[in-house]
Amino acid sequence: MRTASIIAIALCGAAVASDTHPSISDSYRDPAARLIGAALTDSTGYERLAFLCDSIGARLSGSDALNQAIAWAASEMRKDGLENVSTPPVTVSHWIRGRESLEMNAPVHRHIPMLGIGDSTGTPASGITASVVPVASFEQLEQLGHDAIAGNIVLFNVPFVSYGQAVQFRSRGASAAAKLGAVAVLVRSAGSASLRTPHTGALRYDPNTPKIPAAAVTWEDAMMIQRWTDRGQKVRVTLHMEAHFAEPSQSANVIGEIRGRENPEQVVAIGGHIDSWDVGQGAHDDGAGVMAALDAVRLIRVLGLHPRRTIRVVFWTNEENGVAGGKAYRAAVGDAINTHVAAIEMDGGSEQPVGFETTSATPADLRILEQIGGLLRGISAGRIIPSAAAETDISPLAMAGVPALGLRTVMEHYFDWHHTEADTVDKVKPVEFQRNVAALAVMAYVLADMPDTLSRKAAEPRQQGILNIR
Amino acid sequence: MRTASIIAIALCGAAVASDTHPSISDSYRDPAARLIGAALTDSTGYERLAFLCDSIGARLSGSDALNQAIAWAASEMRKDGLENVSTPPVTVSHWIRGRESLEMNAPVHRHIPMLGIGDSTGTPASGITASVVPVASFEQLEQLGHDAIAGNIVLFNVPFVSYGQAVQFRSRGASAAAKLGAVAVLVRSAGSASLRTPHTGALRYDPNTPKIPAAAVTWEDAMMIQRWTDRGQKVRVTLHMEAHFAEPSQSANVIGEIRGRENPEQVVAIGGHIDSWDVGQGAHDDGAGVMAALDAVRLIRVLGLHPRRTIRVVFWTNEENGVAGGKAYRAAVGDAINTHVAAIEMDGGSEQPVGFETTSATPADLRILEQIGGLLRGISAGRIIPSAAAETDISPLAMAGVPALGLRTVMEHYFDWHHTEADTVDKVKPVEFQRNVAALAVMAYVLADMPDTLSRKAAEPRQQGILNIR
Repeated sequence: MRTASIIAIALCGAAVASDTHPSISDSYRDPAARLIGAALTDSTGYERLAFLCDSIGARLSGSDALNQAIAWAASEMRKDGLENVSTPPVTVSHWIRGRESLEMNAPVHRHIPMLGIGDSTGTPASGITASVVPVASFEQLEQLGHDAIAGNIVLFNVPFVSYGQAVQFRSRGASAAAKLGAVAVLVRSAGSASLRTPHTGALRYDPNTPKIPAAAVTWEDAMMIQRWTDRGQKVRVTLHMEAHFAEPSQSANVIGEIRGRENPEQVVAIGGHIDSWDVGQGAHDDGAGVMAALDAVRLIRVLGLHPRRTIRVVFWTNEENGVAGGKAYRAAVGDAINTHVAAIEMDGGSEQPVGFETTSATPADLRILEQIGGLLRGISAGRIIPSAAAETDISPLAMAGVPALGLRTVMEHYFDWHHTEADTVDKVKPVEFQRNVAALAVMAYVLADMPDTLSRKAAEPRQQGILNIR
Repeated sequence: MRTASIIAIALCGAAVASDTHPSISDSYRDPAARLIGAALTDSTGYERLAFLCDSIGARLSGSDALNQAIAWAASEMRKDGLENVSTPPVTVSHWIRGRESLEMNAPVHRHIPMLGIGDSTGTPASGITASVVPVASFEQLEQLGHDAIAGNIVLFNVPFVSYGQAVQFRSRGASAAAKLGAVAVLVRSAGSASLRTPHTGALRYDPNTPKIPAAAVTWEDAMMIQRWTDRGQKVRVTLHMEAHFAEPSQSANVIGEIRGRENPEQVVAIGGHIDSWDVGQGAHDDGAGVMAALDAVRLIRVLGLHPRRTIRVVFWTNEENGVAGGKAYRAAVGDAINTHVAAIEMDGGSEQPVGFETTSATPADLRILEQIGGLLRGISAGRIIPSAAAETDISPLAMAGVPALGLRTVMEHYFDWHHTEADTVDKVKPVEFQRNVAALAVMAYVLADMPDTLSRKAAEPRQQGILNIR
């Protein structure tokens, strides 16, 4: 055993020695150790997350709760001693769910739990009463065609395989069905578990198609409607939704900094989104992201680590239904985009971290990132995963060429809770949150302090295709 | 490989040959094979369960739905060709949930999902507004004592370890808190998973203590109240419950038979309970039990297996909150109890079966049961597990000396769904339901046909302690 270990160590030593300059691993082992040690022994960040969740809770764009969260977050940044704390205003859409209900009238009467899909239009006050036509795919919808669909409510009853697959029906289902004359859509919830649990989230209407109301139903009720249909019985329902848009609302991003000691104009942006859906507590999505990013920056500061460049923590607003915060931040950066050296977002929940997705793709950049990842192996968070897409709020930066990183977790249960009443802080395990703080702190600090910077990409011509599927 | 197999077969042969008379295993291998094969290839029973769940759904004692279910069940027994189908009347209690709500007023306002606990008294129309005192055990409640508890609402915030442990707080919590002057109780739901999921179920008031209202809250909200309390903040809530008892209602057990060919007066009773709580569909609890028992008897009949003794399928009513059906059945049997040779109940959900719990304890009886279990090894349902307690509905029979068997499953997720809106038929996997049908069919048929019967126990002096914790 001992002999084998000695050989392994000797081999590792040889590999490291072959690098031509002092490695990131060597240069940053000490600050990384201090940051990891501090994060894993400090519950401040978790307690702050729990307070956000319990005292403010769900915080949809346009809500008083979101405004409270923004004011509170700025005050916390000041308490942490961050510099240049500001809340630059952002105009956001203001969707209001209102009262909503779904009743099955035939073959039997049942009250069906549901959640209107975010940004959906409402129904007339008298509701919409129609028969339900379940479909298993967009292809089946097309095959059924106008004659079978017109005047009916389409149910997208598609089992969850992945979020990327399931979310298509929530996002595009309403317009696809409206094109064939449907009067409303129901969507089997895009979630990975259900205890009669509806999941909300945003839709996108095709501008050339009539807007029809859309609601998520639970796995259970989607299957129940399917069973009645399979028995040859027509299911009729009445959908009531008061959903509507109020006037756009003034919101804000929340920003604070540790100014760089040598190149303060160069910025590593790190954050998450401060808004959430209007159910649950927005704990994993994305209270954990903003609170972990803030805690990472707090620990860098508390430990007296003063990086070469500026680390800017940003709580973007309106990620869930508009991305106005991400777009406004990019616009405000303007030509200074060229001195944004990296953008990091955590918006995949706070389960056990595994590493970072990155838009960087050159061998040299990946070698640097893998060395930073190597410092995170002790918390199993060291993987570097190339990815074409950036997290939603930093997509506008990524499209302008800024190297973008997204914290990646195991995502074992994230989509059980996501966009539901069950996204509450008890689902965030303190130790996993602390490991995410550690991963963010080490990544942000090293990127802000290392001698070189990651290479920039050519800017994409237009900022189209900023997707919000989280 | 082949050599080893031959040796193994030879050893088995030797073991069987050592029995002094033809073994149960040998005598019943052929009918068991036919029953298992038929059960595993026939979806009739599952479809009937789905129809019960979808068309009638939840069926609490006293409800129209339960009466519909009883009439439908008798009609299905007749369609199956059972003999002596009857619905002997049983008077049952009629608890009505009514409207109910729980609002947190301080430190912040939150609407808290809840389910009143079955058989609870209601609140005044104006509700009950009081501070919440969380406790982690009955011992802590006692230690806090009258001064800390009087005038407050006690929250039993006890993590789920096992159902037997967690259910104590739902069952006895109200009276334990009332003894110290509490004005209501909240109980963290007795379930093994939560997506903000409240679980109902029955309570028992101590007759010498004032009756106070009791409601189940979710894991999430129990923990949220605990966190506020731990922060030194007093949580105040307003509880509204219209819960009350209406006049007792006429219900019925549902009975059908295959009359025995030689000893028709000797009876093997087999069944489950037809009532459920008033949430979800009563699918695992206990739609699956009654439908599997009926399907087992149907298959015995369809295969032309005509047992020596009578097999009587019984759907007991009012298991959930009164056990009136089980008690009435015992009373109706009267002195014929001595010719009840066995009672079998399935009331633990319809996950993968593992075998049977049994009150039989003599070596000879266990040897017989293990031989029957041996016939079920191919579906992994052959374990015979001695148990002091019988299933609820057949407890009155067991106390009168009748050998009692309860079908036992893996119970991996049963308490995730049990007594919630999520107890819906999609949770019952067809193949696992079919295996339960097979296990019930083989056990009932062999007990009804084998030359001997299991031995009877001495009757217990009083039928006290019939517990309903399922």
